[in-house]
Amino acid sequence: MTATLNSVAAAAGVSTSTASRALSGHPSVLPSTRARVEAAASALSYQPNRMASALRTRRTGLVGLVVTNLRTATFHTIAETLQDWAARHRYQVLVSTTNGCPEREAAFLETARAHHFDGVVVAGSGANGELVNALVRDGRAVVTMNREVPGSLAPSVRADYEQAARLATEHLVGLGHTCIATIGGPPDVTSGRLHHAGFRAAMADAGLPVVDHLVHRGPFTPEFGRAAARSLLDLPQPPTALLLSNHEAAFGALPVLGTGSRHVPDQLSVVCTEDEPFYSWWNPPLTAVDNRAELQAQRAAAMLLAQLTGEGGDHPGRRSELVQPVLRERGTTAPPR
Amino acid sequence: MTATLNSVAAAAGVSTSTASRALSGHPSVLPSTRARVEAAASALSYQPNRMASALRTRRTGLVGLVVTNLRTATFHTIAETLQDWAARHRYQVLVSTTNGCPEREAAFLETARAHHFDGVVVAGSGANGELVNALVRDGRAVVTMNREVPGSLAPSVRADYEQAARLATEHLVGLGHTCIATIGGPPDVTSGRLHHAGFRAAMADAGLPVVDHLVHRGPFTPEFGRAAARSLLDLPQPPTALLLSNHEAAFGALPVLGTGSRHVPDQLSVVCTEDEPFYSWWNPPLTAVDNRAELQAQRAAAMLLAQLTGEGGDHPGRRSELVQPVLRERGTTAPPR
Repeated sequence: MTATLNSVAAAAGVSTSTASRALSGHPSVLPSTRARVEAAASALSYQPNRMASALRTRRTGLVGLVVTNLRTATFHTIAETLQDWAARHRYQVLVSTTNGCPEREAAFLETARAHHFDGVVVAGSGANGELVNALVRDGRAVVTMNREVPGSLAPSVRADYEQAARLATEHLVGLGHTCIATIGGPPDVTSGRLHHAGFRAAMADAGLPVVDHLVHRGPFTPEFGRAAARSLLDLPQPPTALLLSNHEAAFGALPVLGTGSRHVPDQLSVVCTEDEPFYSWWNPPLTAVDNRAELQAQRAAAMLLAQLTGEGGDHPGRRSELVQPVLRERGTTAPPR
Repeated sequence: MTATLNSVAAAAGVSTSTASRALSGHPSVLPSTRARVEAAASALSYQPNRMASALRTRRTGLVGLVVTNLRTATFHTIAETLQDWAARHRYQVLVSTTNGCPEREAAFLETARAHHFDGVVVAGSGANGELVNALVRDGRAVVTMNREVPGSLAPSVRADYEQAARLATEHLVGLGHTCIATIGGPPDVTSGRLHHAGFRAAMADAGLPVVDHLVHRGPFTPEFGRAAARSLLDLPQPPTALLLSNHEAAFGALPVLGTGSRHVPDQLSVVCTEDEPFYSWWNPPLTAVDNRAELQAQRAAAMLLAQLTGEGGDHPGRRSELVQPVLRERGTTAPPR
């Protein structure tokens, strides 16, 4: 006997419409309810693709995703999570990388418009608000991620960067560090600005000064991270702790730290925001704040699906979700000696 | 004054058609000639997008790329290199990941067909030869990468896996190792089969036996790599050297090696095939054989462009290119003690 949505709902003890919303990832459903419905669906071998008939008539089945690059775990986790979601819902997610170039992003958004993509997820430059809104007005499902897109009408989801830096800094302060350096992104980019705000706030809460020459803010490149790490280690009085606020800064700084001029963590504690699988394999394993890219992508998928199925209304309006980061304490942080 | 193709050709001392082929990445042009033409084009600020007029009338400007995942450097380097190439040639490369699932790959190839993609690069499961050939017969530009696709009519490019494993093994033998273990992919996949063949050949050339219990062949998962590494380190007489033949095996084995039960490289030399940027940052930096994913992607782009511009003829026929790997000697290999 083939399981129906009704039988799944009955087994889970919820209404059919709640079961439908739970399986489509709708944000109004409590996580505990969703887990119950998913368990029932699994036990009954319910085929989620039956939901396809409930979806608004599709034009192409294509969903576009723009990311800056595919090198960092945040971006490829977002891409893979969305593609796994799409495979379950019979969409094709087509990914484009832009190297952070707003013109390349614009060209992709124009392609998505011209080829009648049903939806677009923009985890990109933060520019192109007008094109994003043109897609919204066309009735396409649109979600922005990662950076704020000024003027955008689309719902958005991103990590709580401020909280990520705050968690990392509080962890260092809690170990007893007072001389804390940071290497972060530029002030004109959402994550760069907010990471720095979180760092400052945590330092202020602890009554600690933010020392100018221990703060390096610059482009998202390993070169910048490398140069900043070198100059910090070369100081007559180097910091006892270092917060690396983005992947690229870490990619540049790690080889410098690996040279062993200061022992990690005995002479220098290191914590990164934005986790990477290989951070666990570093020697010693790197303490990091996980920005939970997979959860971000799942929330974006839910927002997308709400628009694709019309449950969010044709004009979902501006809605922002922040995903809360989590500290992963590993081997590179210790009390100062 | 705007530079023309003629002025670039004159400055480089080649014919206009050679200059055109050089700038379009045609494989018939010598690397030294290509470098000269590119230098002239750069000096004269020649705009390569003028070549667009020479391209066969495009239908959509879309090129599809199928990859198994975006986690490993090989795949995301291929994706980023093709997207950079596409940006220069006014194509959009749309990437799909399949998790190695032939059905998901087939769905993407059907999408590419239905939406009239101009070209497709398949770095995927190795299945779907019929769909690949359907695209070829439709007149689409098609290139396969990474795995052999049985029965495919499309040209292909991949790393010389056999040579990669041979280089790695010869490096270990050259250091004086005789007790060499290997963790590699399954025998029914191109790279798994050929890596193993290269290992065996190099061992045979050195007059060394391949010892059964030092050979682990299995799925491309970190779990398999981890279990295999553990069982090798637990042997009463552990090997003095280890060849990790793919990214996933390395991702699983590295944390085990990082626990320090055998000192690397004093007690155990380690070499990986398939390089990763973070291998240079490991402690000590990992010796690896670089499969030159960027060069593979550039060759695939050239094959694609030859078909898109009609220079390769409408039926380019079966042509295979092997890209030669290079040993990157770093800190994890040393003579046995």
